[in-house]
Amino acid sequence: MDNRSSVRTLKPPILADGFLFSGVTAVILLLFWALYSVVGPTRLPSSPHFAKPLSSHSFTPSLAFAPSSTNSNTCADLRHDPPSATFYDDPLLTYTVGRPVGNWNEKRREWMEQHPSFKPGAAWRVLVVSGSQPQPCQSPIGDHLLLRFFKNKVDYCRIHGMDIYYNTALLHPKMFTFWAKIPLVRAAMVAHPECEWIWWVDSDAIFTDMDHHLVVHGWRHLVYEKKSSTSLNAGVFLIRNSQWSMEFLDVWASLGPQSPEYDRWDIPESDDQSALIYLLLRQGDRWGDKIYLESDYYFQGYWVEIVGRLQNTSNRYLEMERRTPALRRRRAEKAEGWRAGREGWRRPFITHFTGCQPCNGKHNELYSEEECRKGMQEALNFADDQVLRHYGFAHRDLLASADVKPLSFDFPA
Amino acid sequence: MDNRSSVRTLKPPILADGFLFSGVTAVILLLFWALYSVVGPTRLPSSPHFAKPLSSHSFTPSLAFAPSSTNSNTCADLRHDPPSATFYDDPLLTYTVGRPVGNWNEKRREWMEQHPSFKPGAAWRVLVVSGSQPQPCQSPIGDHLLLRFFKNKVDYCRIHGMDIYYNTALLHPKMFTFWAKIPLVRAAMVAHPECEWIWWVDSDAIFTDMDHHLVVHGWRHLVYEKKSSTSLNAGVFLIRNSQWSMEFLDVWASLGPQSPEYDRWDIPESDDQSALIYLLLRQGDRWGDKIYLESDYYFQGYWVEIVGRLQNTSNRYLEMERRTPALRRRRAEKAEGWRAGREGWRRPFITHFTGCQPCNGKHNELYSEEECRKGMQEALNFADDQVLRHYGFAHRDLLASADVKPLSFDFPA
Repeated sequence: MDNRSSVRTLKPPILADGFLFSGVTAVILLLFWALYSVVGPTRLPSSPHFAKPLSSHSFTPSLAFAPSSTNSNTCADLRHDPPSATFYDDPLLTYTVGRPVGNWNEKRREWMEQHPSFKPGAAWRVLVVSGSQPQPCQSPIGDHLLLRFFKNKVDYCRIHGMDIYYNTALLHPKMFTFWAKIPLVRAAMVAHPECEWIWWVDSDAIFTDMDHHLVVHGWRHLVYEKKSSTSLNAGVFLIRNSQWSMEFLDVWASLGPQSPEYDRWDIPESDDQSALIYLLLRQGDRWGDKIYLESDYYFQGYWVEIVGRLQNTSNRYLEMERRTPALRRRRAEKAEGWRAGREGWRRPFITHFTGCQPCNGKHNELYSEEECRKGMQEALNFADDQVLRHYGFAHRDLLASADVKPLSFDFPA
Repeated sequence: MDNRSSVRTLKPPILADGFLFSGVTAVILLLFWALYSVVGPTRLPSSPHFAKPLSSHSFTPSLAFAPSSTNSNTCADLRHDPPSATFYDDPLLTYTVGRPVGNWNEKRREWMEQHPSFKPGAAWRVLVVSGSQPQPCQSPIGDHLLLRFFKNKVDYCRIHGMDIYYNTALLHPKMFTFWAKIPLVRAAMVAHPECEWIWWVDSDAIFTDMDHHLVVHGWRHLVYEKKSSTSLNAGVFLIRNSQWSMEFLDVWASLGPQSPEYDRWDIPESDDQSALIYLLLRQGDRWGDKIYLESDYYFQGYWVEIVGRLQNTSNRYLEMERRTPALRRRRAEKAEGWRAGREGWRRPFITHFTGCQPCNGKHNELYSEEECRKGMQEALNFADDQVLRHYGFAHRDLLASADVKPLSFDFPA
């Protein structure tokens, strides 16, 4: 669990526009073990818990006729609190960066005890958070792409029973662009005490494997396996809703342009990603053992290495379905990665279009505008095909965003 | 329940661009009573059922470690079916308009019996459906507005535990613009047998009362109360996932431009709305007793009559909160309509920007581009304030889309 040796082997950061880091293949995974924190119900389950399926549970709706959400993955807003005091009644509570909430683990635990309907499955409850700028995009097709990227996330969350919050306001006037995620995640932690995890996903990242269930298929990998790393990316990360995270976010935020200390850190043109690297390098002793870096494309793939292979991947999955009648069945059970993982290249879980800047259109010079645009279209339609399948349709090809065809029975036989 | 007299009092339709109908204040509510249909579990509950809170229920996840969604409002995709045959295994099943599924009520009932986790709250399960064109908008800010309109719907659904499906593909090459909703609703019915209701909401309609719970506060009104009407609007409607609806959609679709019979119907430049009126007038005997028309702004308000009052409404709600400490409590229980309904003008449930055409920008000549743009900004921020409140922020004013302020404890005292 100690990643400090991995941290020390990081190459010195290239302190340039954060999108250069898009070339690297890892992602920050911010977790911590219960052994290292003051936890209660936030403790990660041991294997027996992990293996136990959720059992029945009861809840008491507070309003007559009011069905309450009991989705074990969603952070359903319980729209009101009981008469007894909760941490929300504390005048010192803040939703903003600058002062971490104290005793946050305990406050969450108490709140969960007052809201027993959330207890089952509490360890898995995830809120996906994303967002984009408040103003219209500078690129003529920027907002259209953002709309489709957002729809993609909503589709994934609906299929996997997760909630999503997409923000279009600027929560801190000086924490704009890539810094804006920090105050947003900070506010989301307080707004959703029932959520164990906040999953930040950049606006330009797409879920390209809709079958992939993070909690089912990824949890053990993320939580129990440790990998060495060579780099990291702040565009997609999981952060636990805990005291440690509360404090970490605050320190991370303090490296931003709004901070009076901004000039003290010797990070020219710092962005949130180089700030993270800085923290790991300079304060590795303090933070390193709670941060898990993941480097095998699990969380996100670099789009340049992915988009040229999407058509082949699509064809490979279709070929498997032609050979296997059970896979063609509508609503067939699709085991994780199907068998594609063993036979060839499988669908990437998330494809991240770092460097393409769909909103302002100022893509990295490494790529052309056409490469970016076509790549995004292909990935969006590749993902949308997996959703549309459920509604009886598919795109005619990966570049045909508008044009879909109804699927015949027993497609693709 | 018999609305035929109401139907016959309809004024002759003004057969023009459907957006002129935006001036009217009613909405189509397509429901039917169990007494009039071959129903089983689709029967609307009698009052005792209506009053009974949901009790505990159990479910059996089909995948190890796989939490299943048990949200009683969501149409959570159960990603696979049991080995025994379901209606999905019928080669004659279609997701497309042109041939209604036969015995749909029975097929849904059987499917629900095979998926018992969906039974509790089945009568309330709602899928919100919306969408917009596959291509980028012609207006430079069109997609930005659509993005915000979509976010608004996602916020409402998250708060109230409903699922949402937003479509950006053209499911039938000739059923574009306003006709596109029909094949989409048709496909959604088959894709979501666990959903009792499909709720179509136009892309240019905004939820402006986030506290308003359709099922809790509107069901009795919609289902049990009948109102006379003078007009209707196809931009926001509820349709039950039933055999009747399946057949109705088919007939409604047949009036569209893709139909070989299109020229037979003497409806010049017909849109989906005038087609609906036509059906009610010419085939009232066949359809009228299942259609409930609602005319008191419940489902949607005409934006022109609303936006000028939003600031005052906002001030009125703030004033009430200043006077009532319990309302200022974070996550305070907000009774339906608060007391504003008695004291003055309450928040409209949904505000519909018919005639503004945010995507192509070709607004109705009755309004200026500025009136539309400002109106939409105000309504979006008015709604967003109700969401941001939960995250500790509020817009500085209704026209400040970007600029938000953190809320102090005990705001607005």
